Amino acid sequence: MQDTDPTPASRIASLTDWLRLESARGVGLRTAHQLLAAFGSPRAIFQAGHDALAAHLGPALARALHAPPSQATRTLIDTTLAWLASPSHHVLALGDVAYPQALANIPDPPLLLYIRGRIDLLARPALAIVGSRNATVQGKANASAFAGALSDAGVCVVSGLALGIDAAAHEGALRGTGSTIAVVGTGADLFYPARNRALAERIANEGCIVSEYALGTPPTSGNFPRRNRIISGLSSGVLVIEAAAQSGSLITARVAAEQGREVFALPGSIHAPLAKGCHQLIRDGARLVETVKEVLEAMQVSPLASVPATSSTNALPTESACTELLAQLGHEPLDVDELLERLDTNISQLSMGLLALEMAGMIERLPGGKVQRIHI
Amino acid sequence: MQDTDPTPASRIASLTDWLRLESARGVGLRTAHQLLAAFGSPRAIFQAGHDALAAHLGPALARALHAPPSQATRTLIDTTLAWLASPSHHVLALGDVAYPQALANIPDPPLLLYIRGRIDLLARPALAIVGSRNATVQGKANASAFAGALSDAGVCVVSGLALGIDAAAHEGALRGTGSTIAVVGTGADLFYPARNRALAERIANEGCIVSEYALGTPPTSGNFPRRNRIISGLSSGVLVIEAAAQSGSLITARVAAEQGREVFALPGSIHAPLAKGCHQLIRDGARLVETVKEVLEAMQVSPLASVPATSSTNALPTESACTELLAQLGHEPLDVDELLERLDTNISQLSMGLLALEMAGMIERLPGGKVQRIHI
Repeated sequence: MQDTDPTPASRIASLTDWLRLESARGVGLRTAHQLLAAFGSPRAIFQAGHDALAAHLGPALARALHAPPSQATRTLIDTTLAWLASPSHHVLALGDVAYPQALANIPDPPLLLYIRGRIDLLARPALAIVGSRNATVQGKANASAFAGALSDAGVCVVSGLALGIDAAAHEGALRGTGSTIAVVGTGADLFYPARNRALAERIANEGCIVSEYALGTPPTSGNFPRRNRIISGLSSGVLVIEAAAQSGSLITARVAAEQGREVFALPGSIHAPLAKGCHQLIRDGARLVETVKEVLEAMQVSPLASVPATSSTNALPTESACTELLAQLGHEPLDVDELLERLDTNISQLSMGLLALEMAGMIERLPGGKVQRIHI
Repeated sequence: MQDTDPTPASRIASLTDWLRLESARGVGLRTAHQLLAAFGSPRAIFQAGHDALAAHLGPALARALHAPPSQATRTLIDTTLAWLASPSHHVLALGDVAYPQALANIPDPPLLLYIRGRIDLLARPALAIVGSRNATVQGKANASAFAGALSDAGVCVVSGLALGIDAAAHEGALRGTGSTIAVVGTGADLFYPARNRALAERIANEGCIVSEYALGTPPTSGNFPRRNRIISGLSSGVLVIEAAAQSGSLITARVAAEQGREVFALPGSIHAPLAKGCHQLIRDGARLVETVKEVLEAMQVSPLASVPATSSTNALPTESACTELLAQLGHEPLDVDELLERLDTNISQLSMGLLALEMAGMIERLPGGKVQRIHI
């Protein structure tokens, strides 16, 4: 599939609609979700009549949505399509087969995910590691050691590419097969903070960088807290290594708990300022952990499970695997679960195969977890 | 009351019965509790007929109980009465008004408590502090600081006079008004371990030493674990400062939890061997604490409450207070709760007054929390 044009016409049209929706003035994420719930897809929203849209948005916003895209939006669409020419760049829209199911289930999932690097990592068991930017040497060593051991067990370590605990966790995780995902608060084409540029480039090459922000979005203070819901949303749990009382890591942990994720916290001395946040979390119900083994047991991941590293930075399946998948798909809408039973594969491999076919415009996703072959 | 003979005839007779019961061969603590539940008092047990006793004990033990006390038992009785000649020495029997109610409510309360020093401390709000004998310097500093602050708030700190955390807790608590109780695993007339002799003498003078073991009982390994149930039994909670995994402090904490006491634990570094026990307790439901304030809040003791120190080492009430109490008692059995309402006093002072009168043979305790004046 590597030789197939990664952005066929149907895919371009769909992506254009998503970018128009996300760029529409006055339409925030919450409104976009309401419109998607009402109409089903960006295409259906733009095809809806004025009265139907106005019932949700009022007449002014409905008229604005019906207007042709602005120059800025057209430039963004062009920039995004050009960026997607690189085989290691991807955009997933909410509802795409490869869009991580765990993230899709949070209350406010991103409409689009910009992905740079190994998109296959999105299908791995994942754990977030977060903590203070002003971490101690011991805290950073703990973050790196936990991340390395989790990654060795095949768990992908998710963090936010900040200084301190985040950077140490990414670095530790890059050593193992589980690798790492950095969820950034800027466009996926930018590197921030500057001090982590070398690390960010390594993650782009060996791991995966994820952003919900349009390409070129500069760092703004409001975007970083929003980004935290994706860090926990991609993960089955959040491990807090060091955190001051009333710090941002505690907000991440609270959001994670609201998303139903397990929160883990490392204890420390009663005299250590950066243990206070972790102790507060433990008082509030977080699981106190001393070892990686405890985290893996809680995640129900065997510490002995070793997932082979993928050598390619673009881990889409081979053409023969896709041909077999297409053959199984037949000509009727098919449930993904049923497909999984028919094929000698796992959900991760199947998702990647379906993603490749979807990006090639050869299948489409239908409501209710079904997929169908497109006959051209 | 200080000039009154502390061991009048009725008191001597009662104590003799208790010592005979406790010294009886083949009658352990559990059997003694069964007999007390059946017959009501040691006196009633010894006055019971052979068949009634044999129904509980079998004929051989029943015959042994009816036999006159052995020479060893008579010597013990003499030794105990001689020891009681010191005004700072006391023996409380289960059911005595001054026997601490919290301890009486555990499943296996001691029949007798030998007390050396300030018996008034038994009526204070109390917290146990326990931990490793091989504590770190920081652990001992934490124990001393927590104990000092608790004692400053009027809380009596209970521990086991062992090396390490126990000793540091006693030393810290001696600085404040709450003072300290050392529950020892030998006779109350012995000092063990030798390295804590100076501390034990200070506690005997300024605080209180408590033992359930007959005078002269040497240190034996089995007695120290049994002693731990008294440490927690006297306390409303147990604070574990440092403890290795699978150490004795964890057993004390488990017993405390079984007694319905709150367990508190100080966290520490994941790399500290003596934090592992505390972390296990926190995982099992113990309350993680960083400050004394949290402990006081959980105990519902105000950190500002300051109880004046008692200057006397023998804090029995004045003669005038006892006279007033006797006047209120009148001639009918009276409920202690009703007595408390009539008098301008608190339960602690009232208990001490009743104890003084009981020890002077001027009142007797009746079933159902009632007391009655004895007319001689």
